Amino acid sequence: MIGPVSEPFDAVDVIRAKRDRSELTDAQIDWIVDAYTRGVVAEEQMSALAMAILLNGMSRREIARWTAAMVASGSRMDWSRVGRPTTDKHSTGGVGDKITLPLAPTVAACGAAVPQLSGRGLGHTGGTLDKLESIPGWRASLSAEEMLAQLRSVGAVVCAAGENLAPADKKLYALRDVTGTVEAIPLIASSIMSKKIAEGTGALVLDVKVGSGAFMKDVDSARELARTMVDLGNDAGVNTVALLTNMQTPLGLTAGNALEVRESVEVLAGGGPDDVVELTVTLAREMLTAAGVAGRDPADALNDGSAMDVWKAMVRAQGGDPDAPLPVAREQHAVLAPADGVLTRLDALAVGVAAWRLGAGRARKEDPVQPGAGIEMHAKPGAVVRGGEPLLTLHTDEPERFERALTALDGAYDVAPAGSRPDLPPLVIDRIPPPR
Amino acid sequence: MIGPVSEPFDAVDVIRAKRDRSELTDAQIDWIVDAYTRGVVAEEQMSALAMAILLNGMSRREIARWTAAMVASGSRMDWSRVGRPTTDKHSTGGVGDKITLPLAPTVAACGAAVPQLSGRGLGHTGGTLDKLESIPGWRASLSAEEMLAQLRSVGAVVCAAGENLAPADKKLYALRDVTGTVEAIPLIASSIMSKKIAEGTGALVLDVKVGSGAFMKDVDSARELARTMVDLGNDAGVNTVALLTNMQTPLGLTAGNALEVRESVEVLAGGGPDDVVELTVTLAREMLTAAGVAGRDPADALNDGSAMDVWKAMVRAQGGDPDAPLPVAREQHAVLAPADGVLTRLDALAVGVAAWRLGAGRARKEDPVQPGAGIEMHAKPGAVVRGGEPLLTLHTDEPERFERALTALDGAYDVAPAGSRPDLPPLVIDRIPPPR
Repeated sequence: MIGPVSEPFDAVDVIRAKRDRSELTDAQIDWIVDAYTRGVVAEEQMSALAMAILLNGMSRREIARWTAAMVASGSRMDWSRVGRPTTDKHSTGGVGDKITLPLAPTVAACGAAVPQLSGRGLGHTGGTLDKLESIPGWRASLSAEEMLAQLRSVGAVVCAAGENLAPADKKLYALRDVTGTVEAIPLIASSIMSKKIAEGTGALVLDVKVGSGAFMKDVDSARELARTMVDLGNDAGVNTVALLTNMQTPLGLTAGNALEVRESVEVLAGGGPDDVVELTVTLAREMLTAAGVAGRDPADALNDGSAMDVWKAMVRAQGGDPDAPLPVAREQHAVLAPADGVLTRLDALAVGVAAWRLGAGRARKEDPVQPGAGIEMHAKPGAVVRGGEPLLTLHTDEPERFERALTALDGAYDVAPAGSRPDLPPLVIDRIPPPR
Repeated sequence: MIGPVSEPFDAVDVIRAKRDRSELTDAQIDWIVDAYTRGVVAEEQMSALAMAILLNGMSRREIARWTAAMVASGSRMDWSRVGRPTTDKHSTGGVGDKITLPLAPTVAACGAAVPQLSGRGLGHTGGTLDKLESIPGWRASLSAEEMLAQLRSVGAVVCAAGENLAPADKKLYALRDVTGTVEAIPLIASSIMSKKIAEGTGALVLDVKVGSGAFMKDVDSARELARTMVDLGNDAGVNTVALLTNMQTPLGLTAGNALEVRESVEVLAGGGPDDVVELTVTLAREMLTAAGVAGRDPADALNDGSAMDVWKAMVRAQGGDPDAPLPVAREQHAVLAPADGVLTRLDALAVGVAAWRLGAGRARKEDPVQPGAGIEMHAKPGAVVRGGEPLLTLHTDEPERFERALTALDGAYDVAPAGSRPDLPPLVIDRIPPPR
C-alpha cells in the first residue's frame, strides 16, 4: 500500500505490524500519533490499532515513545516561574475518592506547589472537577496565566485541562471509550502519564486503586499499571512514585459531589474519617518527599488550620465561596441495618453505581450531574451496627431514582454477629518506588 | 453501559465480548450487523470488532450467523423463473485468472444457467468486470429484470452487484480495506459467501487459489478458507464444493484486461493455453455436477463452437460487440530470456504487480484501468527458452511505467540449463467436497 505522497507511512502498514506482533518503530509511533491528531489517520484506523495494542501489547520502549508522542501533540507547561518545587498526585479513580480536595491545600501549606489538571467523572467513579463545581461560584477553566498567578499566590490550583494539553490523548480517549479499547495497560498508562507529563509537574505520586470499585480489580494488574507509569514518569524527568491502595470499600463516609466536599472540609478542619485523613497525610508526605521539600509534616498542617487557609484561598481564587452553604438533595431515603452485629463488607462498586444512579455521576460526557446527589455511609467495615438503624442514606433530587440505586445495593454489604472480626486489607497495599 | 433506548444491545458490550474471547450470541450478531448497516454502530466500533475477530477468531456457528446477517442486510435474488438450474463459480483471485470468461458460456452451453455477480479488481489481481469492460460497448450494470431476461434467453450473465446485494458486506469490506482487517478467514469467508448466497445461485464451485499470486500463500490456510466457505454455502442451501488450485505462476499466457479477453476467446474457439482450458473444463464439470445437470461434456462445448455462440450472445446482450477489435496499448517492451535453457519458475505475484504497475489494475477503488495494459508471457514454467528471445512483453499506454514494472519483475523467473525438469505442482491441488 502507498500512502498519500506527503506522508512517510501508511496507516494500514502500521496497523498490520502491531496486528502481526511486530514492535512499532519510533518513527512509526511518532507518525501515527501525529497523523491521528491531524486527522490524516482516520478514527476507524486508530480504533483497529488500539484493539491490536490491547490484544498484542506493547514493549516498554513502545509505551514510552507513544507517551512522548502524545505529550508532543500539544505543549508541555512550564512552572519554573512559580518559585517553589511542583508536585502532584493522580488517582486511577475510586468511590468516595475526594483526597485531592484536602491534599492539594495541605501540600501547598507545607511548601510545595500543586498544579493539578483534573477531569470530570464518567461512570461510577466521581470526577474532582464535578465535586469542586458543587461549590457555589467555583469555576474549572483557567488560562495558563491564571494558573501561574494562583500557584504563586496560593500554591495550589485544581482546574480543567486546556485544549492544548496532549490533544492526541483527548481524541484517543474519546475513541477508546466507544470502541471497547479502554482496558489496555499500555493505553491507560500512556493516557494518564501523557497528561501529567504535559502538565509540567516536577514530581508525581500515583494512587493506583485496587478492588471492586477500582478500574484494576486485582493487585497484580494494578502493580503492572503502577510500574509502567512510574517508569514512564521517571523516563520523562518527572520524579514519580506510586502507592497501591485499597478500593474494596469506599473511601470515607460519603460518595457524591457536595457530600464529598463537606467531608473534605471536615478533614481540613482537623476532623473527618480516619481513612481519608490517613491517605491524605500519606500521599502528602510522598508528594513532598518526591519534590524534595522537607520541614513541615502534613498532619500538622491539617491540625493547625494552615491547610484550611490554603483551601479557602484556592476556592476563592477560582470564584468560589468557601463559606457558602453546599447544595443539598431534595429527597433522602435510608437503608437500615438488617440486624445487630458488625459490618464486615460494604462493596465499593455497588456504592459507586448506586451514587451514579442517584445522579452523582453521568453516563455520557455531556450529561449534567446533581451536586447534592449521592450516598452517606453511617458505618465502615469493622464497625458495630444496630438492626433498624440507618446504614446508608441515599440523596437525590429525583425520587424515582431510588429504586435503581437500591437494586445496585442489593447484596452490597454483610452484617455478621456481634464480636466478629472481619479480615480487612490495609489502606496502603504496596509502594512502587522509582527505578534504581 | 446502556445503549440508546430503542437498541437491544450496546456496541461496546459486543466488542468487549469478542475482545475477551467470548462467543457472540446469534442475537448479538444479528443486531450488530444490522445496526452497522443502519449507521447506529459507528465505523470505528466495527473496525475494533473486526480486529478482535481477526485476532481472536470465530466459531463455525458465529461465522454462519454473521454470513446470514449480511445476506439479510439486503435481499436474496430468486432465479426460480429462469427455467433451468443455476450454478456459479467464485475465484479468490489470481494473476491471469480469466476463467470466468470462457467458463460461464461453456456451462450455459451445457444446459445450466450462470447468474454471476462479479467485481472490479483492486491491487495485483484483476477483476472480471474490468476485463469485460475492455470489450467496446459492454456494460456491467443490469437490473434484476434484465438479468432474468438474459438468463432465460442466453443462459449466462456476468454483471455488477446491485446496491441491495449484502449492503452490510459492501460497507464492511471498504472498512476492512483501510483498517488492516482484511486477512481474517471468518471475515473473508463470510464476505464472499454472503454475496454468493444473496446472488441466489443454486450451486457454487469455489476456486481457492494457493501460492505467491494468491491471497492464501499456503495450502493449509487455503484449505481452511475453502472448508469454511463450503460449510457456509451448504448451510445456506447452496450446493457448494471447492477446488484448491495453483497460483504460484500466472494462469495462461496473459495478465491484463483486453489481453485476457483475447486469450479467453482463443479458448472459446477451441484453442488457448492448456492450463486455461484444463481449469475451464474442470470447473465447468464441477458446476454442472453441483447443479445436477448431466449430459454434455464442457470440452465438447468448447470444441464445437456452442460455447462461443453463448459468449457472443452474452456480450451482445450487455451492449458489447464481440467482433470489434480489442484495445491495444500504445507501447511495448520485451523482456528477453537471459540464456538458453528451461524456464523453471515465473512468479505469479511479480507478474501481477508488474501488470498492475503497467496500468492493468488500480491502487484505489476510484482509479481507472488501462484496457490494453498488461503482460504477455511467451513461455510457462517447464518450457524451453532461447537466450535473447522475448520471455515477456510488457504493454502500457504510458512508457514511464515500464521502469517500476521491470523492478517488480526483478528475480521473478529462473532459467535452468537445458534438460532440467522443474518440479511443477499440479494445477488442481485438492478438492473439498460438501460435508457428509
